[in-house]
Amino acid sequence: MHILLTNDDGIEAPGLLALAQALKPVGKLTVLAPDHNWSASGHVKTLHRPLRVWHRRLADGTPALTTDGAPSDCVALAVLGLVEETIDVVVSGINPYANLGHDVTYSGTVTAAMEAAISGIPGLAFSLDGAENHGAELEYEAAAELAAGLVRQVMAQDPPRGLVLNVNIPCRPRQELRGVAITRQGLRVYRDALVHREDPRGRPYYWIGGEAPTGVPDPGTDFWALAEGYVSVTPLQLDLTAHEQVATLQGWGLEL
Amino acid sequence: MHILLTNDDGIEAPGLLALAQALKPVGKLTVLAPDHNWSASGHVKTLHRPLRVWHRRLADGTPALTTDGAPSDCVALAVLGLVEETIDVVVSGINPYANLGHDVTYSGTVTAAMEAAISGIPGLAFSLDGAENHGAELEYEAAAELAAGLVRQVMAQDPPRGLVLNVNIPCRPRQELRGVAITRQGLRVYRDALVHREDPRGRPYYWIGGEAPTGVPDPGTDFWALAEGYVSVTPLQLDLTAHEQVATLQGWGLEL
Repeated sequence: MHILLTNDDGIEAPGLLALAQALKPVGKLTVLAPDHNWSASGHVKTLHRPLRVWHRRLADGTPALTTDGAPSDCVALAVLGLVEETIDVVVSGINPYANLGHDVTYSGTVTAAMEAAISGIPGLAFSLDGAENHGAELEYEAAAELAAGLVRQVMAQDPPRGLVLNVNIPCRPRQELRGVAITRQGLRVYRDALVHREDPRGRPYYWIGGEAPTGVPDPGTDFWALAEGYVSVTPLQLDLTAHEQVATLQGWGLEL
Repeated sequence: MHILLTNDDGIEAPGLLALAQALKPVGKLTVLAPDHNWSASGHVKTLHRPLRVWHRRLADGTPALTTDGAPSDCVALAVLGLVEETIDVVVSGINPYANLGHDVTYSGTVTAAMEAAISGIPGLAFSLDGAENHGAELEYEAAAELAAGLVRQVMAQDPPRGLVLNVNIPCRPRQELRGVAITRQGLRVYRDALVHREDPRGRPYYWIGGEAPTGVPDPGTDFWALAEGYVSVTPLQLDLTAHEQVATLQGWGLEL
């Protein structure tokens, strides 16, 4: 099995290093990650400028490639032939905070997995909930071991070509984890607020600030799983059609 | 009715101007658009840097606001209070090429409409198929008239708060259009190829190139509607869960 590993936090991120180490026993590993942090970059494919690629090593000496492109570009570059050997699965992460609810449409970590699916390769995105409040590398290592185990189990199932899994791991000791829950995307509640300031020359500027978003922990959702101590695995699709609205809209009789 | 108009091609784009002119008779209009082109920027919310906002005028003198933020930021800024009056609907476009199939996950035009839905405001994204091959402003004007008519009809239905409509308009004379089709997202076929070049100093760089992507025109899809001469209206949702895969995954018995 040939694994492509990428992320959106960049080649220096501790979550990438931990995942690289944990995935080595699972299969042949190619690391291709952005040269800087692309958090909240969304699904970007760089068509308007050329991309550079450099050889680098991770902190433990693992050979790696890095590019000035986005997470999705890493996948596109590899799939389109920069990496010669066929890629069997794309693994993205570990993101240092959870990707839940509507977050997935903003998340570079998740969209790297989606880019894989567009190319017919299973994509698994891993995020660590609450890591921003802990930050110890040991916690990435434990989460990475768990992630590697999930990659192995999923690939043993001969998964469908378009499989995208959004995996969120609670930042808790292993013995406190209750298992794996297959979940659906929950509802985010954003509490953004506009912060108005003035620069030293008296001109206004704005921050999108406010409190951190929360989630509605309805049973069966990703928010619920994390709150209950489960590893949350949400299967995602690239079809964004609101199928149940089609009949309603047809009833509106829209005209030219 | 108070309409917020934005786009991802920037404040100078002819598609924005045409839509501004066509929407004026429909309601009170606020224009807030990026100061440069964000095509293929995906769903971005700028949290890591402050945003600037400037007063500008469109080419016809229409007052407008512009920001160094992304299309989604335009919506967030307006909704969070930069624009005082409550916004009833967000209109995005007109994009100078179609947003079909998987394109929607890359499209700034569409994600502006999604950002509206996250805030509980209906969002309508408009794109003109084939405008890149024609380019006449007159064609934007005809499409904008049509778009304004759809905004009026949709808002008359008291649409659900989370409504997101991805509207694609064929670049054809009005008399050749066959009507409005409510569609589902079709399947894109990408034909990307990696183009390998060397700079004047002999160092490699890469373009994501290849032929333009095509679509599978299955009946009922957005690709089909445009091919048949219909205006395609696809309702989108923010829930990306692949619900029909949940049972399959539960059957895999994934473990820690």
